[in-house]
Amino acid sequence: MREAFTAELDAISDDLVHLTRLVGSAMNRATQSLLDADLRLAEEVIAADEQVDVITAETEEKCFDVIALQAPVASDLRIVIGALRIASSLERMGDLAEHVAKQARMRYPAPAIPQELRGTFAEMGGIAEAIVSKTGAVIATKDVALATDIARHDEQMDHLHRELFTIVLSPSWKHGVEAAIDVTLLSRFYERYADHAVSVTRRVVTIVTGEPYAGVTLDAGR
Amino acid sequence: MREAFTAELDAISDDLVHLTRLVGSAMNRATQSLLDADLRLAEEVIAADEQVDVITAETEEKCFDVIALQAPVASDLRIVIGALRIASSLERMGDLAEHVAKQARMRYPAPAIPQELRGTFAEMGGIAEAIVSKTGAVIATKDVALATDIARHDEQMDHLHRELFTIVLSPSWKHGVEAAIDVTLLSRFYERYADHAVSVTRRVVTIVTGEPYAGVTLDAGR
Repeated sequence: MREAFTAELDAISDDLVHLTRLVGSAMNRATQSLLDADLRLAEEVIAADEQVDVITAETEEKCFDVIALQAPVASDLRIVIGALRIASSLERMGDLAEHVAKQARMRYPAPAIPQELRGTFAEMGGIAEAIVSKTGAVIATKDVALATDIARHDEQMDHLHRELFTIVLSPSWKHGVEAAIDVTLLSRFYERYADHAVSVTRRVVTIVTGEPYAGVTLDAGR
Repeated sequence: MREAFTAELDAISDDLVHLTRLVGSAMNRATQSLLDADLRLAEEVIAADEQVDVITAETEEKCFDVIALQAPVASDLRIVIGALRIASSLERMGDLAEHVAKQARMRYPAPAIPQELRGTFAEMGGIAEAIVSKTGAVIATKDVALATDIARHDEQMDHLHRELFTIVLSPSWKHGVEAAIDVTLLSRFYERYADHAVSVTRRVVTIVTGEPYAGVTLDAGR
């Protein structure tokens, strides 16, 4: 019974790591589609989100079956419930990558971001990639030391998000209201993506250490 | 055993209904603080969100205990897992109300929204109130017929959200980039609030009917 439980937990963990790769690749390619105004790539990202939804649903079913069949209690149950929530967060990260790609598609053939913000979004994309890759590693290895790194990346993302407001609101902004709204929403998608990665990490840390992880702040709302 | 399970499920359902009232009141008062540039009210909404977080955590613990102690299976387990997720969505709705209040606070003593959009936000606030109140009724009564109403309210919210872009992007917009960003983000908070209400309803419908509810579309990303 215990062995079966452990094997099923491993399978769920593998699914979650797989999901981090999928939503990591999605955000990475969405960023590329944004920077290159690449319609084909944007369409691919949008189409690929269905796979994320399917794997999330399968993972949730596995969690459900483990609870129903093995009736875990105490920390074992917390692990499975935690996995359910991690799956939800990862699915949402996939949605956010899809939103970025949709923005690229909506503005095509024009680029969705002005030249002077390409660096900012390239950097946001890089941080998103780093944060999701480390999130996958936390799930796979349970090495909670990586949580510090992840929190740092999240701070970098928040910093870029705030910096973007400064750029958009400066007198030198020449791209008008529509472009300002576009980049604000895009920036918020990246910021929320990082928040969800932090939230996933926090759940793993709570499971591993048995204590709530208070080292991060989430979603300041702007 | 069965009676104990039913009683605990009722207690969880009561908690969820209570949460809909709290996050409904929060959004209602947040809207008021926005329309009146009322700092004290905004501060109250921001402070009150902690209570939502506490009750959410308590509800989650109740769900956890029911699973651990009663080992429900099949549809019973789906109900409890569904309740866990509903609690998460409601907690997030509370966060979104808090975001609205924070925006009112940030711009105080100036109003965070220009005169010509007061009607839009008053309407969004009204829809938010209707949708969350009906969401509470769906949870309390399991009357899934209300889902149609809720989906309609969500469409109204999406319509207002799109309409707001038209206003902000029209040549007659005289409030500049900062106000445009403010109202876009605010509008997105309302739109996401309605999405979460739909998501809660969808879960209740799935639990009651045993079938996924496909009658709604969520978060178009802009």
